[in-house]
Amino acid sequence: MPTALRYDLLNTDPQTRARRGRVTTLHGSFETPAFMPVGTQGTVKGILPDHLRESGAECILGNTYHLMLRPGEKTVAALGDLHGFMAWKGPILTDSGGFQVFSLADVNKITDEGVTFKSHIDGAMHHLTPTRSIQIQNDLGADIIMCFDQCPPGQAPIEDQLRALDRTLRWAEVCVEAHARKNEQSLFGIVQGGTHLDLRAKCAEALIKLDFPGYALGGLAVGEGFEAMKSVLEHATPLLPEKKPRYLMGVGFPRDIVEAVRHGIDMFDCVMPTRNGRNAYAFTMDGAIRIRNAQYARDPGPIEAGCDCYACRTFTRGAIRHYFFAAEMLGPMLVSLHNTRFYQRLMADIRASIEAGTFADFIASDPRSKLGPRVIAD
Amino acid sequence: MPTALRYDLLNTDPQTRARRGRVTTLHGSFETPAFMPVGTQGTVKGILPDHLRESGAECILGNTYHLMLRPGEKTVAALGDLHGFMAWKGPILTDSGGFQVFSLADVNKITDEGVTFKSHIDGAMHHLTPTRSIQIQNDLGADIIMCFDQCPPGQAPIEDQLRALDRTLRWAEVCVEAHARKNEQSLFGIVQGGTHLDLRAKCAEALIKLDFPGYALGGLAVGEGFEAMKSVLEHATPLLPEKKPRYLMGVGFPRDIVEAVRHGIDMFDCVMPTRNGRNAYAFTMDGAIRIRNAQYARDPGPIEAGCDCYACRTFTRGAIRHYFFAAEMLGPMLVSLHNTRFYQRLMADIRASIEAGTFADFIASDPRSKLGPRVIAD
Repeated sequence: MPTALRYDLLNTDPQTRARRGRVTTLHGSFETPAFMPVGTQGTVKGILPDHLRESGAECILGNTYHLMLRPGEKTVAALGDLHGFMAWKGPILTDSGGFQVFSLADVNKITDEGVTFKSHIDGAMHHLTPTRSIQIQNDLGADIIMCFDQCPPGQAPIEDQLRALDRTLRWAEVCVEAHARKNEQSLFGIVQGGTHLDLRAKCAEALIKLDFPGYALGGLAVGEGFEAMKSVLEHATPLLPEKKPRYLMGVGFPRDIVEAVRHGIDMFDCVMPTRNGRNAYAFTMDGAIRIRNAQYARDPGPIEAGCDCYACRTFTRGAIRHYFFAAEMLGPMLVSLHNTRFYQRLMADIRASIEAGTFADFIASDPRSKLGPRVIAD
Repeated sequence: MPTALRYDLLNTDPQTRARRGRVTTLHGSFETPAFMPVGTQGTVKGILPDHLRESGAECILGNTYHLMLRPGEKTVAALGDLHGFMAWKGPILTDSGGFQVFSLADVNKITDEGVTFKSHIDGAMHHLTPTRSIQIQNDLGADIIMCFDQCPPGQAPIEDQLRALDRTLRWAEVCVEAHARKNEQSLFGIVQGGTHLDLRAKCAEALIKLDFPGYALGGLAVGEGFEAMKSVLEHATPLLPEKKPRYLMGVGFPRDIVEAVRHGIDMFDCVMPTRNGRNAYAFTMDGAIRIRNAQYARDPGPIEAGCDCYACRTFTRGAIRHYFFAAEMLGPMLVSLHNTRFYQRLMADIRASIEAGTFADFIASDPRSKLGPRVIAD
């Protein structure tokens, strides 16, 4: 019987801690470092699965919080689990709902058992516990599922951080206990601890004792700033087991991804390609452009010269700009598609440079390694 | 040098006036009877060109009124005319703007020269004349363009109908005169006259003298009712030249199309597949279904059993219903795609039955020949 998850470390970069690997699940493999497009509500917004696959994406992400509220995990299970529901045959990862409960919902009460919150959709009261999060994720049926954790605000006082961390560690044990499909789904632990390196170390040490098949760094890219994130990546990533995949949750800009790969991160997810796409921001090698700008009104070129995505092969900047002004669906569809391909090209180029042992050169010379929030044009 | 338009009459049905033909333009051919999806603002809403082509559509429609207001015909021309702009390599037809001016805009003044109206987008004042309509359509560059006509309300008194008809005939001459790309674009005349068979005959006779390469029936499916439309189709269609294509504008339900084909109509356009699709109404052989209905929440079947469209091959009714409730673009995208394919399957089946000489049987036995407004479920 095949195992639910295998991680093959293919090679490491000679000058950095970057690693080239492959994660294999019962629904197929994905090459790492990998970027997973986010399908919050059972679809990567505006992108049909055939174009998503064509973009180079191999593993995608679903959200427990959104799917438990609508259409409900039992409905997803009845319609062929998340793979059948969203028509994605490859690997899928679901997060636990922890991050969304604390960022989207109106949190009513947090106890050692779990969280009571009001739905952002209709205000109905819901209760989410580590056990319930795992039950939902078992029903959704993703290949990789995540522990339910408490995510305190980055600026919370140290006592709150400590309390949240202790709770997260206790909840991790509850999640392991509750997980009912270990032969099919792999449960990852999440290292929290904010920007406190000692808390990160304590958390990593405790989770490693639980022997998860993979580990994530959570609670980054939540406003702590690039330098603080770099520090956590530098010190916390090497604490994670070498023979298991490492996932940096919710990150991020190309610059952030390059920096994290340098320290040995294997997996990423972020809504940035599609959220920016819907808002007419298109990624290019030289920075993001705002396709609504007047300068593109009669621009006959593609979104990004040299890009091989369907949008760039097919439409001019001028036409896409018109679609945004005319409120036509094709605007968001096409720029989301381009951005999704942009991220997959970035990852393919990162992987190739690690294979070639030249990732340090990539960092030094590729413009995407500097592509952060400041270069977004407006 | 190839001609701008050729119509080949391939065969006629032995028991009806239905005809199987082919229209050839400089951008390729389309088989008739043909249904042309409507790309109002330079895109068939929510459908990428590759899926549109896959649906079986061979000729599509653009709207002069919308495109002159936004992005402007000069912008479309600068971006490769309408073919390049909307990435459609096959034949395109543009209407003249007449119908939209009278149905969408706030009409300020109608004179013998043309129409002054307020844009529905920003209230700006615009002037549209027969000459200007043809100039715009020359810039847009469609293969088939239409005369600018006056469309009086169906219930207007006979004197108003007569005045509008005289004006439409004078404007037709102006349009012929203004047309500057006769070697590339074919200008069709539009027979108006409401439900008055004598006015229809008068209009057809006058237009035929101008020797257009094709003829349309306008001013139908605007509230006159099915029986009145049948009467006009029965009496006016045979007045049109046999060796030229005949186009029924803005129609309609499958029932209407079948009825019109029976009388010898070759071309159709309607927003129904995409407008209904965006509103979660899906066409099936047995009638339209409302995919938002609770009964489909966990329905694992496709929109329509046996349909070969991408939506039906890929997604369940339950998932598509969820996309509508979650306001995900995939809902409108998928049902629009299905409806577009539904209409193309209808036309393919109509064409096959005319080829086989069995169109009368098709009318008698195929459920789509009765699919009108009443069978739309809600």
